[in-house]
Amino acid sequence: MNAEIIAVGSELLLGQITNTNAQFLSQHLAEIGINVYYHTVVGDNSSRLLDAVKQAEERADLLIFTGGLGPTKDDLTKEAIAAHIGRPLVYNDEALRSIENYFKRTKRPMTPNNKKQALVMEGSLVLANDHGMAPGMMIKGEKHFYMLLPGPPREMQPMFIEYGKPALLNVLEKVEKIESRVLRFFGIGESALETEVEDLLLAQQNPTIAPLAGDGEVTLRITAKHESESAALQMIQEAEEEILSRVGEYFYGYNDTTIARELAERLKETSYTVAAAESLTGGLFQSEITAIPGASSFFKGGIVCYSNEAKEALVQVKKETLTRHGAISAECAIELAENARQLLKADFGISFTGVAGPGEAEGQPPGTVWIGLSSKYDQTKAFKLELAGSREGIRKRSVKYGCHYLLAALARNK
Amino acid sequence: MNAEIIAVGSELLLGQITNTNAQFLSQHLAEIGINVYYHTVVGDNSSRLLDAVKQAEERADLLIFTGGLGPTKDDLTKEAIAAHIGRPLVYNDEALRSIENYFKRTKRPMTPNNKKQALVMEGSLVLANDHGMAPGMMIKGEKHFYMLLPGPPREMQPMFIEYGKPALLNVLEKVEKIESRVLRFFGIGESALETEVEDLLLAQQNPTIAPLAGDGEVTLRITAKHESESAALQMIQEAEEEILSRVGEYFYGYNDTTIARELAERLKETSYTVAAAESLTGGLFQSEITAIPGASSFFKGGIVCYSNEAKEALVQVKKETLTRHGAISAECAIELAENARQLLKADFGISFTGVAGPGEAEGQPPGTVWIGLSSKYDQTKAFKLELAGSREGIRKRSVKYGCHYLLAALARNK
Repeated sequence: MNAEIIAVGSELLLGQITNTNAQFLSQHLAEIGINVYYHTVVGDNSSRLLDAVKQAEERADLLIFTGGLGPTKDDLTKEAIAAHIGRPLVYNDEALRSIENYFKRTKRPMTPNNKKQALVMEGSLVLANDHGMAPGMMIKGEKHFYMLLPGPPREMQPMFIEYGKPALLNVLEKVEKIESRVLRFFGIGESALETEVEDLLLAQQNPTIAPLAGDGEVTLRITAKHESESAALQMIQEAEEEILSRVGEYFYGYNDTTIARELAERLKETSYTVAAAESLTGGLFQSEITAIPGASSFFKGGIVCYSNEAKEALVQVKKETLTRHGAISAECAIELAENARQLLKADFGISFTGVAGPGEAEGQPPGTVWIGLSSKYDQTKAFKLELAGSREGIRKRSVKYGCHYLLAALARNK
Repeated sequence: MNAEIIAVGSELLLGQITNTNAQFLSQHLAEIGINVYYHTVVGDNSSRLLDAVKQAEERADLLIFTGGLGPTKDDLTKEAIAAHIGRPLVYNDEALRSIENYFKRTKRPMTPNNKKQALVMEGSLVLANDHGMAPGMMIKGEKHFYMLLPGPPREMQPMFIEYGKPALLNVLEKVEKIESRVLRFFGIGESALETEVEDLLLAQQNPTIAPLAGDGEVTLRITAKHESESAALQMIQEAEEEILSRVGEYFYGYNDTTIARELAERLKETSYTVAAAESLTGGLFQSEITAIPGASSFFKGGIVCYSNEAKEALVQVKKETLTRHGAISAECAIELAENARQLLKADFGISFTGVAGPGEAEGQPPGTVWIGLSSKYDQTKAFKLELAGSREGIRKRSVKYGCHYLLAALARNK
């Protein structure tokens, strides 16, 4: 089965946004063995959209559309496709209810144009939108399958994973199963990791092993094909074991997880608690671990001690420490981590202090970072980092290092 | 002049990378008045590339290609286009020299396939590659212009700005100036805003007004075309004034700004300081405003009081408040905002408490949010929100509402 991905939206042609949906869908279609030979982007214009559809019908079996399902006059994908394949649009009660509930919940007046979002092609499989209003749909025309998905990635991605991908697997008479697993690593560079597994990368046929680097992390995607799903999974398992026997110390999780989420899960399992004092990172560490549902079970709270007054007043850092060593010092990081832990009666205390940039501070260059780690079990430590990159990059990678150190400490104190 | 952007590379169709080149080129083409009606992505396959080229020739005057200029067998864009328009490939001495110098500089052996990168279409305008090896080129065929650019953004972007864009301006007979401005709104829904300006959207010709919604915000992009830049800007100015006369209370900034950044800028201008106490948002508000360089001038610090113990121990919320009204209450929000302000000796104090979900808390549903706002100037207020959506969406929109309320308070106390 060959697919073409058609993104509809003038904002793409004006360069206001980039077409990340095509990348996301291409990855998942490749996983289930659907070939993608073309991506097309077309504006909010019926006749040009129709031209793109006719063109795609000549070269693909499956047309996947993103965008143009919303309430406004610009949103015309559904109407254009329905007219093209001659299916009437009918109201979908479930979608209509969820749209009405959305406005009830948000206590906002429901303007008439919103009702339009509940229209679906008669006879289509409706794909629920769990993160927005406009439902998606899949329908079989005379010769082609058409799947319509919303444009916003936060609506489109879960809809495709939850409902779209399973619907496609249903219509595929597939013999060969394709299984895939991503291993995530932190604390090792891409080339260093590739050197460790170079022979595997060179020898790869099935399973394939694809490295990818970004945001200070490296991932390896293992993909195996086999008639039997269990055999494919077994092939992945063996490749994973070989890889982890070499670079396991840097491995932190699978697929789309994050190091903050893995830390949160380990804390839940071990029922240890953590408190934080953040200067450099300004609350980023705490906001990331509290993004995880159930964070209250392991996180009591912390302080964002951005100024020296705050370090003294809220975290009781000694004035002498700040005057003698400065705020960007091992001594300050250690006091912050210890005092945060004791103030919140937590098992672990972590602190972040340093220079995010763009300018220097206390005569130290951007990227100078001290992370303090205090616990009931180990002696309090301070880790120094010298990071390169933007202010935001330095803040984000500092938080990842903090999670990395905490995960190691949890492993030691299992 | 109409253009089509054709990205060549199987890695795009496999979802290994996203096509940021199309966004970059679209922005710059719009600036110089070249309309882009389609983006196409095709793999490293001559016949499919040729089909895409023929298709594009039917609907565009200018075909811009990215990718496929490198040394490997997969790189076939140049060869395919040269054969298609019947131009021989000849060695470009300058390009050849710079490739040889590159290998001298990097002390690496120059493999023969690298010489291939110095081949250009006879009679083409060669676009130097200052950040890589493969040069770009532009050539006029019978009816169309063809511009070939390298795939890596760090090579393509400077090449287009330095040589590609000027070459296009040369061939454009009359450059109609296109100016564009984005107005950003918060606190009003997309359809509600569209209802307010519907007549403008219906009447629009030049300037055009394009709405876009996402992440709880709505934007209107005003785009005007005129031979004179100042006239185009004047047209935008008039449209903006008409729009703001209707929905100005929800307007917060221009183009790519964020509401957190605008808040930071207003705080810097007014030299007011702010402190925060975050429960619901777990540090997200503080991490967003400290993402702005120079945050230390207006932000002293704050508390992430995720547990009730932390609310009592770190922000001195009265036990009675928590037992009688609960943590998710106007009373708690008010004490948190007032105490945070006084603890940090700040001009403004803001607090966030509520239920991010997925589960309910204190018998209240996810999306129940109280935001407290305290200042030396007004009586302390608590704002209640009932938000829908995911845990992360509720946290993010709560932070935006907090910025929204603070901006309004700053405006009152200018």
